[in-house]
Amino acid sequence: MTMEKAPIDFYFDFASPYGYLGSLRIDGVAARHGRTVTWRPILLGAVFKLTGMKPNMHQPLRGEYLRHDTARCARELGVPYSFPEVMPLNPVTASRAVYWLDSQDAGLARALAVAIYHAHWGEGQDLESPEAVAAVAAPLGIDRAALLDGVQQPAVKNRLREETDTAIARGVFGAPFFFVDGEPFWGADRVDQVERWLATGGW
Amino acid sequence: MTMEKAPIDFYFDFASPYGYLGSLRIDGVAARHGRTVTWRPILLGAVFKLTGMKPNMHQPLRGEYLRHDTARCARELGVPYSFPEVMPLNPVTASRAVYWLDSQDAGLARALAVAIYHAHWGEGQDLESPEAVAAVAAPLGIDRAALLDGVQQPAVKNRLREETDTAIARGVFGAPFFFVDGEPFWGADRVDQVERWLATGGW
Repeated sequence: MTMEKAPIDFYFDFASPYGYLGSLRIDGVAARHGRTVTWRPILLGAVFKLTGMKPNMHQPLRGEYLRHDTARCARELGVPYSFPEVMPLNPVTASRAVYWLDSQDAGLARALAVAIYHAHWGEGQDLESPEAVAAVAAPLGIDRAALLDGVQQPAVKNRLREETDTAIARGVFGAPFFFVDGEPFWGADRVDQVERWLATGGW
Repeated sequence: MTMEKAPIDFYFDFASPYGYLGSLRIDGVAARHGRTVTWRPILLGAVFKLTGMKPNMHQPLRGEYLRHDTARCARELGVPYSFPEVMPLNPVTASRAVYWLDSQDAGLARALAVAIYHAHWGEGQDLESPEAVAAVAAPLGIDRAALLDGVQQPAVKNRLREETDTAIARGVFGAPFFFVDGEPFWGADRVDQVERWLATGGW
């Protein structure tokens, strides 16, 4: 019998380009060290209300840098990147859709999260409307009517609120945010450090 | 005759722990790729006035993470780190002292900047007062009275203002901030990416 290692918690907001970039690397890093990753979409808007911060992309100077930097990071990683025309995304429906599916099929919920991130940041689609989210879900075999109903269920709405509250209680203030055995790491540019932490057991 | 490569511009604020961490790596990275680094202390307070942001360490959640993260980064790098009791540092005198020396001896100015960062973030000393800055400068053979006079010179005060204004005009909104042939990189955690940029010529 082998000891099972705890999953890595990955908190993100679909509106965050750095969350997208982090999402494309964290599973591979985790797998190389015998870990899985639990994807947890949250609403950074609720976090910013608490901290009084604004989204990076709306800060003077930093917003322009973010556009340049995220595109440069995507080129380095060799991943698709397309700055959405509608920004920032309202991620409520997309996030609820993931939690609705998660209560039935965690693997499919993950696949939907990947598809949402790809459609929004890889292709620049706006995914605020339930119809747009359902259209991204359809190729995965997810029924449109079931999804449109699912994202309205009180239990699903509660789950998103609770995940966001738990994230704040754990100190999450941005995305992507990773926890490795309770150790917090913030930022897509910390994935290499997360890997060194996993490889060495920490320092 | 070999083509001289342009120096890397390194903007930082002595009050920034990430600036300290970045300062300990950038010269080595630059040297491996035939570059030098121009150290340019600036006043992030002036930047924050423009952007409406607060120093990271004063933001809810993020401030606590910063304390944990900077100490963890210092342990990984194997460098001294001691969170100062007096925070944030008012870096005006320390920054002026560097520019005062720079007009006479650029190498000695660099050595003073290194000593100031070490005293403040490596040992936790407060360096707001001119006397404290002079005490850090003394072991480098820098005359106390000359320094106390130098940091009051209008040309020196102007230089610090101009360097800060130029930084803002170039899009600097935090520290450390590096420019490699005009390409902007923000953050101590981007030094590896700066090295890849230097090694490959960019992407």
